[in-house]
Amino acid sequence: MADQKPLILVTNDDGITSVGIRTLVELMKQLGSVVVVAPNSPQSGMGHAITISNPIRLYPSDIFGDVPAYECSGTPADCVKLAKHHVLKDRSPDLVVSGINHGSNSSISILYSGTMSAAIEAAIEGIPAIGFSLNDFTSQADFSHTRDHILTITRSVLERGLQRGTALNVNFPARTAEPLKGIRICRQANAKWQEEFDERRDPHGRRYFWMAGDFVNFDTHAEDTDEYALSQNYTSVVPCQYDLTSYGMLDELKNWKL
Amino acid sequence: MADQKPLILVTNDDGITSVGIRTLVELMKQLGSVVVVAPNSPQSGMGHAITISNPIRLYPSDIFGDVPAYECSGTPADCVKLAKHHVLKDRSPDLVVSGINHGSNSSISILYSGTMSAAIEAAIEGIPAIGFSLNDFTSQADFSHTRDHILTITRSVLERGLQRGTALNVNFPARTAEPLKGIRICRQANAKWQEEFDERRDPHGRRYFWMAGDFVNFDTHAEDTDEYALSQNYTSVVPCQYDLTSYGMLDELKNWKL
Repeated sequence: MADQKPLILVTNDDGITSVGIRTLVELMKQLGSVVVVAPNSPQSGMGHAITISNPIRLYPSDIFGDVPAYECSGTPADCVKLAKHHVLKDRSPDLVVSGINHGSNSSISILYSGTMSAAIEAAIEGIPAIGFSLNDFTSQADFSHTRDHILTITRSVLERGLQRGTALNVNFPARTAEPLKGIRICRQANAKWQEEFDERRDPHGRRYFWMAGDFVNFDTHAEDTDEYALSQNYTSVVPCQYDLTSYGMLDELKNWKL
Repeated sequence: MADQKPLILVTNDDGITSVGIRTLVELMKQLGSVVVVAPNSPQSGMGHAITISNPIRLYPSDIFGDVPAYECSGTPADCVKLAKHHVLKDRSPDLVVSGINHGSNSSISILYSGTMSAAIEAAIEGIPAIGFSLNDFTSQADFSHTRDHILTITRSVLERGLQRGTALNVNFPARTAEPLKGIRICRQANAKWQEEFDERRDPHGRRYFWMAGDFVNFDTHAEDTDEYALSQNYTSVVPCQYDLTSYGMLDELKNWKL
């Protein structure tokens, strides 16, 4: 069936009712047959968590009209696993897209990102995958300026595929009066979150903390990073892998003669 | 203070009451001044999750006698952040060790591992870090055969340091009648979990799923992987990084002319 439409699985980490996933579903309907399996509640900051000590719920949803959709009690990575091995067990998706996230997942934020963990989980399954995120975390974020780039990047991946084990981390600048300048292929900037813990007391006098912090970019002089591209009003695309081996340190460690 | 003892932060993902962390605390007391900040409940499979939408609790604990210890309601990554920026804000740890995990975190399991997310969080903070895991997930696992290797590896890291942004993923075979053969420096095996979802009905007739699955190693013919070393009764050491950029695909993507 060479002319069969590609099967596209859509998921996210903000939950199935978010504006971002609705935008992505509408766009993917232009490119293939769409199935949605997404969390039933916000899962931001879940990283690559999976649900192994609790049961997982999965219910059909009519939230996207004639697009088959399921809401899942699990994490974004759970959603991809359940979609692949249960919902779509008779036909593996040709592509997994995750997002559009309300909030940036550039540079170090990829590690904490449920959006990107879903894309990386798909890559582990051998399925090409893209995570899309907008640098605007408000629930009513304006995604309209991202549409053309999402279609361009997704069409290219459907046509060309990705190297096995690779997922794309795509980030968009927040909408401004200026249109986006274009798309840049980048490396992950070397950065971190500099935490500050906001200490408070509950009504019973017991201490608690809110995690807060500032983003610190150690790569401010580099122009090949996702952070630089975003700062210049470009869409950033970083190819990502799940082999965490630091090959640059293998030989040094071997010389330790442990 | 050149002769000041190194400050070692100990955490884990099985929770502060587990046998594995108790073993690690006892060993680290031989090497430095120890502080424990660990979850107050099991956090297995939490990946690199952080707690941003809920308050975090942190209480002192006397579970380790004269070793300062805190139990935390958050994830392993939260524990490292709270330790660095609150508990130890006046003196950064010289080393972070995580574990000993009850269960293997070799090859692909590193992505889902709370144990290794704590070590990688430390690496992001610029602190040398090691995650230790035993291929025995029972609560009464026997860790006695791992002691010499833990001391050898930890002493070497304290003396030599690690490349910035690197953490070590150390895994031990389960105890058998044979002693461990030695320590092998390895790369992360290319593998995945092949999920099967066990579908059941609750007493109210509603469906739920348990995640289960089998480990599949795609690298069975390679002898330089952690899986191979473990299969031969060696301790495996994989240096890990948090830059997920797939440098091998950067040039190909640039040629797409997006």
